[in-house]
Amino acid sequence: MTSTADQARSVIAGTPADSADVEAATTAAAEAFASNRATTPTQRAEFLELVAEEIEADKDAIIEAAVAESSLPVGRITGEVGRTTGQLRMFAGVVRQGDHLGVRIDPAMPLREPLPRADIRQRMVPLGPVAVFGASNFPLAFSTAGGDTASALAAGCPVVVKGHPAHPRTGALVAAAVGRAVERAGLHSGTFSFLLAGEGQSGIELGQALVGDPRITAVGFTGSRAGGLALVETAAKRAVPIPVYAEMSSINPVVVLPGALAEADTTAFAEAYVGSLTLGAGQFCTNPGLLFLPAGDAGDAFLAATAEAVKASTGQRMLTPGIAEAYASGTSALRDTEGVSVVASGSEGGDHAPAPIVAEAPVELLTADSAVAHEVFGASGVVVRYDDVDALLPRLADLEGQLTATVHATSADSADAAKLIPVLELKAGRILFNGWPTGVEVGHAMVHGGPFPATSDSRTTSVGSLAIERFQRPVAYQDVPADLLPEAVRDDNPWGLTRRVDGTLER
Amino acid sequence: MTSTADQARSVIAGTPADSADVEAATTAAAEAFASNRATTPTQRAEFLELVAEEIEADKDAIIEAAVAESSLPVGRITGEVGRTTGQLRMFAGVVRQGDHLGVRIDPAMPLREPLPRADIRQRMVPLGPVAVFGASNFPLAFSTAGGDTASALAAGCPVVVKGHPAHPRTGALVAAAVGRAVERAGLHSGTFSFLLAGEGQSGIELGQALVGDPRITAVGFTGSRAGGLALVETAAKRAVPIPVYAEMSSINPVVVLPGALAEADTTAFAEAYVGSLTLGAGQFCTNPGLLFLPAGDAGDAFLAATAEAVKASTGQRMLTPGIAEAYASGTSALRDTEGVSVVASGSEGGDHAPAPIVAEAPVELLTADSAVAHEVFGASGVVVRYDDVDALLPRLADLEGQLTATVHATSADSADAAKLIPVLELKAGRILFNGWPTGVEVGHAMVHGGPFPATSDSRTTSVGSLAIERFQRPVAYQDVPADLLPEAVRDDNPWGLTRRVDGTLER
Repeated sequence: MTSTADQARSVIAGTPADSADVEAATTAAAEAFASNRATTPTQRAEFLELVAEEIEADKDAIIEAAVAESSLPVGRITGEVGRTTGQLRMFAGVVRQGDHLGVRIDPAMPLREPLPRADIRQRMVPLGPVAVFGASNFPLAFSTAGGDTASALAAGCPVVVKGHPAHPRTGALVAAAVGRAVERAGLHSGTFSFLLAGEGQSGIELGQALVGDPRITAVGFTGSRAGGLALVETAAKRAVPIPVYAEMSSINPVVVLPGALAEADTTAFAEAYVGSLTLGAGQFCTNPGLLFLPAGDAGDAFLAATAEAVKASTGQRMLTPGIAEAYASGTSALRDTEGVSVVASGSEGGDHAPAPIVAEAPVELLTADSAVAHEVFGASGVVVRYDDVDALLPRLADLEGQLTATVHATSADSADAAKLIPVLELKAGRILFNGWPTGVEVGHAMVHGGPFPATSDSRTTSVGSLAIERFQRPVAYQDVPADLLPEAVRDDNPWGLTRRVDGTLER
Repeated sequence: MTSTADQARSVIAGTPADSADVEAATTAAAEAFASNRATTPTQRAEFLELVAEEIEADKDAIIEAAVAESSLPVGRITGEVGRTTGQLRMFAGVVRQGDHLGVRIDPAMPLREPLPRADIRQRMVPLGPVAVFGASNFPLAFSTAGGDTASALAAGCPVVVKGHPAHPRTGALVAAAVGRAVERAGLHSGTFSFLLAGEGQSGIELGQALVGDPRITAVGFTGSRAGGLALVETAAKRAVPIPVYAEMSSINPVVVLPGALAEADTTAFAEAYVGSLTLGAGQFCTNPGLLFLPAGDAGDAFLAATAEAVKASTGQRMLTPGIAEAYASGTSALRDTEGVSVVASGSEGGDHAPAPIVAEAPVELLTADSAVAHEVFGASGVVVRYDDVDALLPRLADLEGQLTATVHATSADSADAAKLIPVLELKAGRILFNGWPTGVEVGHAMVHGGPFPATSDSRTTSVGSLAIERFQRPVAYQDVPADLLPEAVRDDNPWGLTRRVDGTLER
């Protein structure tokens, strides 16, 4: 096993990974785990900060590669570098604070009747090596050193990344940066590995081998529903099944309520919708793919303004030719669905830059097997008209699970909005008002998750500090002698943790 | 759908549940969920306390039924009633305190550059109706109103229990008590249902129908590995897969270190081991099925004392004839394994009260496919001798996942014990020193869980207050108007919750 930096360099030079590399990477990760999990909060936080520093040190080359490989604009990629390093530093802060260790202490009660109580202490420990599959649409923030990697490393888990074939050079440069940080932090070289399928090699096979490897203990994935479900199936069939956190598919319903529509500047409102829909060629997990619009004149006016905005839009180059093809076939299935009419489409923007489109469909078409209710990755939106909110509620309840649900409302809509919230809570990981779902803040309160099929595990999030909890499990220590207890649960509390003592949080 | 109390009464009268009852129970549970999840902490806590009260009100009949159906002694069952009501009241306290709601608030930063930050708030919401499969060996504490039910109701989830066929009358009486509490609390009658397969009817089919029902959102199970894995498979194959928390199989290794052995009163130590092994006919998930003993004279003396204690023991009547048969076939497979020798066996205690047994096996037999490394439910133990701890470590690392791992050590063993802990942390949910694993304290720091196959989900526990988190998922609220926010995340904090504001816990 060569060091991560060497390995990444060999990838830059075009050496593809094969099953022996999977074996080598997972073996090294399992070895690294012994020391990784023993690192102090300070050591772990400093390592995450070094990763951020090393990415910044090679920022120009990384941006150049990512722009070239993704066709995304420089400004967007530059912002994504900041998001990526900011995310790493946020997790450094989380690790330093230590609340994620979830320390609980129930002191002994030797005199309790009828039976004495033992001394019992609990803390979270890392699961073990984690496999991370980066996303196509965020070559940095949801990729090699993105949210899944940052939260797994923060938990104390070594990471093996399967690089995304759409941005191999970006991935390798970021992997090299992580490798340098591993070296500078004095960590085991198996702490981080980066694998990339070579040309003519099956990335799917490589990924399946990784998830099937007995040393891997959890999986983070952002991508298609088919890809995510294939990994979920492999993980469930292992001799020892493991959790898969797959962020997969969402059409992010938006409900425009009558009051909001009445008060809005119709043109600006429609332009904001089309702006969110076409941002980054619509290549966001949180793209507003389905909009519910009141019937009647105000809705007609919004739709007319939407048509104008769409007509004025030009397609942006998509991430890969394959993604552009999938967009073409998805939008063509939508156009061909009986009952669906095209509101407007924009102009093509050249190779792999298909025209944005907005279609209209009757609410009856929102069934699980209809093209209307499935994600078309790209700048494609469906508008559904509704007569009244009460009739809309069961339709919303029948939707599949979503990453986000958006409501446009003013105080005049308050009664309707209050009915929507409990329905949307069951459907989505994030409910937002009077905005657009694209744009996912990295913070402590964010949920980028949601019921199946938005994700494979609704009990968590892939963005925000709560994401660290995905890669941990609790262990209880009963009557363990003081000198053998892990620092986190020792009486003298050397890490200064907030701890739950007999059920109550104590600083 | 009749009320829960009626339904439980009809079960007492011998009316078995069929697939129409599954449908009725899950439909009612889905209806109840709308109001259940909207209850305040006080309402939910009071309901849990009413359940405890109603169980106590019918305590005599419940104890009489449970003793008759389980063959467990009155003292043990009486203690289990207290454990069950204590558990319900503990969760009432957890709900009142509200830390399980995990509230996080990242306030808006309207002036942030380059982009303003939205106001984002997070809380946990209940998953939805939960199916609970009670255990054979704890007719109260791990059954109808046991830990899974208590934690699911505490989270705000309606519960549908599939009653265990080994104690139908006990289950029905407890179900009736829960039904009365539902009525007194003014909750929807679908909040709790109890289903029991009739004679000649397949309990497996009934359970599979329940787990396959689209309204069920999570499953709690305590029982056999085969039973648990069958439910895991069904849950994974659903159109919308759901989490299964199955507590399944564990042999609970005990490592006796040389110093502890040298300092111990050999006879008392061996008697304590055999006492833990034979307690309640050995019918504990945490029964010490595998004991590692040093080679040499002190170990020989311990083994001889163990043989005496086992010979002096008499089998207790097991829970069911089927369980006694499984014990007979498990111990006979153990005896027939080449290399295994019987240290001693006790006396039979009459019908379905097979003799306790302790066998000895060489460490080489501890392979995944050997009878030595698999749970025999009942008073059956295997002793493995070892020469030195360093050679033992890889053997321990090769064991399957366990609920508990026990170390007997004195200060003289400190260096060895320090090597054991990191290995055992990867194998077990609870590590205990100088005690025996039977006896699972219900508290805040307890972990009754562990890596597969001890459980199907190592990220949690089925005993203790952390168990409530199994039935929740996070939802984020972005820029939701103040008057529409759920109480838990409102600025005026009407429930007085501890909340994480910008990453820091605040009272």
